[in-house]
Amino acid sequence: MVTLKQLARELNVSISTVSKALNNSEEIGEETVRRVKELAELYNYKPNKVALSLKQNKTKTIGVIIPNILNHFLAKVLFGIEREATKLGYNIITCISNESLDKEKESLQILANGSVDGFILSVAEETQIKNEVDHFKKTISQGLPIVMFDRVAHDVMCDKVIVDDFDATYNATKGLLNEGRKRIAFISNIDQISVGKLRERGYAKAILENHDMEPITLIIKKKDDHQKKIKSFLKKNKDIDGVIAADSSSGIIAINTAVNQGKKVPKDISVIGYASRADSNHTLPRLTTIRQHAKVIGANAAQMLVHRLQNMHLNEDVKTKIVKTSLVKTKSILKENNP
Amino acid sequence: MVTLKQLARELNVSISTVSKALNNSEEIGEETVRRVKELAELYNYKPNKVALSLKQNKTKTIGVIIPNILNHFLAKVLFGIEREATKLGYNIITCISNESLDKEKESLQILANGSVDGFILSVAEETQIKNEVDHFKKTISQGLPIVMFDRVAHDVMCDKVIVDDFDATYNATKGLLNEGRKRIAFISNIDQISVGKLRERGYAKAILENHDMEPITLIIKKKDDHQKKIKSFLKKNKDIDGVIAADSSSGIIAINTAVNQGKKVPKDISVIGYASRADSNHTLPRLTTIRQHAKVIGANAAQMLVHRLQNMHLNEDVKTKIVKTSLVKTKSILKENNP
Repeated sequence: MVTLKQLARELNVSISTVSKALNNSEEIGEETVRRVKELAELYNYKPNKVALSLKQNKTKTIGVIIPNILNHFLAKVLFGIEREATKLGYNIITCISNESLDKEKESLQILANGSVDGFILSVAEETQIKNEVDHFKKTISQGLPIVMFDRVAHDVMCDKVIVDDFDATYNATKGLLNEGRKRIAFISNIDQISVGKLRERGYAKAILENHDMEPITLIIKKKDDHQKKIKSFLKKNKDIDGVIAADSSSGIIAINTAVNQGKKVPKDISVIGYASRADSNHTLPRLTTIRQHAKVIGANAAQMLVHRLQNMHLNEDVKTKIVKTSLVKTKSILKENNP
Repeated sequence: MVTLKQLARELNVSISTVSKALNNSEEIGEETVRRVKELAELYNYKPNKVALSLKQNKTKTIGVIIPNILNHFLAKVLFGIEREATKLGYNIITCISNESLDKEKESLQILANGSVDGFILSVAEETQIKNEVDHFKKTISQGLPIVMFDRVAHDVMCDKVIVDDFDATYNATKGLLNEGRKRIAFISNIDQISVGKLRERGYAKAILENHDMEPITLIIKKKDDHQKKIKSFLKKNKDIDGVIAADSSSGIIAINTAVNQGKKVPKDISVIGYASRADSNHTLPRLTTIRQHAKVIGANAAQMLVHRLQNMHLNEDVKTKIVKTSLVKTKSILKENNP
């Protein structure tokens, strides 16, 4: 079996010139294209092996596509990817899709053009809504493996790293029920994205398992005054004795508002939220938080991709790794919380 | 004057092959290198024009190098760069230097290799400490312009976008003095980076202009318990009636701690901090903030780089743009704050 390298040597041109010529690249002169193709035909070289052969020419670089860089969780995953990739001897190059399908496609194209060996990405909001997956499948078929994290496309056969959002919120709500809380509210300003919905479902399941209870939900929109909404919600529902917050600000504002309205935390009301360690400092007492381990997610994604890149010949089955959240308990919940 | 394109046409090879041959790239066969060089000599083509000529072959892509993606200010600048670049018809590719000089050099190399037309970057901490600038100068001399933002290298002749940290902190401190505050403290957990130092100097200058006043400073280290430090500081210094916070968490914790210790904000104590709009929601009353307009900084950097890319032939003088901060006043300061 003839390789690109052998063709290149025989023709006294570079490997990339051979590969470009076989792909009819405009960059290569007509005469060169003709010479390359004649020799390839003579040796029965098949152009569909180009992608595979180019892979021998590893860039040792991973392309990362992030939907929204202002999302602190995603920024932390990126940090985790970067740190682990460096340990494994890989560089990373990042593009931001800005939640746009077109930008996501464009980013894949820019980087697939010989700059990277494979991709780690979280799917853009628009892509999720339109349920488009062809651009991912095409990339994979070109010999560039993809690892998806957090927001994944279930219809694409590739390695995935996901978080147990549903279970985590279900368990947190169960914890407040075990404290003896009777009126537990769910507050969210991320209702529009898939993980926001998963968290709401986890909360609702725990509540509805009690026949005498109903979910109490406050959805805050992007344009709303976050503080005002929570203030009037807690004022109107004075009997609320527990809060599960789906995003990093809602839990913090809930505690500060409750204290401001003369309630004692956790005597009168327990609060649990999704937040980072730094943000949990923004309340007194500190907010009890569901930690998603963003950096661990990033590290896992990097490990999975590098493993696949180094074992392409094995053609292993795709895997889905679940990174479990953990509940970091502070004085914003009662001690009896433990089941 | 002969161009790369003309050489390529005459030799029936690609432009990139000519350019690589002139640079003695190992990718190109010896025979081709010889033919290219002979023709280049015949036409008196000078290899030092290679970089410039390659520029004709625009990628319409900007390389961005960010020192720390977990820093929300830097993430917001990146967002601003991305949005403006898209408007101007450019893609961006990002690398993270992780505050490391080696990573910064590596990122420049990876991207300078034909992937981008120019760079927007903020200098890594290690690079600032070692005061290394050769890698920036080399990149610029290769025909790839750089725009630096926030953390800039003064010894490099290139376009820059900076923030008026010193003036902003000076003015905020003056504001609290105009309220009649007598014991104004400065709290910071970013003492180790250059903007942290600038902010402290701005605060100290305003304080020292009053002969009977002394700076009162609390420096919090990365490993410290942020809440505990501020709690015991405010407990020990009960007469503190004003706080200027250099980072986003310190101002929030200061308000929450003061309220918890029975003080009224702003009757007993005024607090101003550097924080985003979202974070200013984390206190009741909301934190008065010095806004840095990170997205504007990013947009300016993108505009400056694209302007330079589109006017390389004019060889314009380098410019430094200062983006002014603004003070967003809330009920965490007295009304008399205005001078």
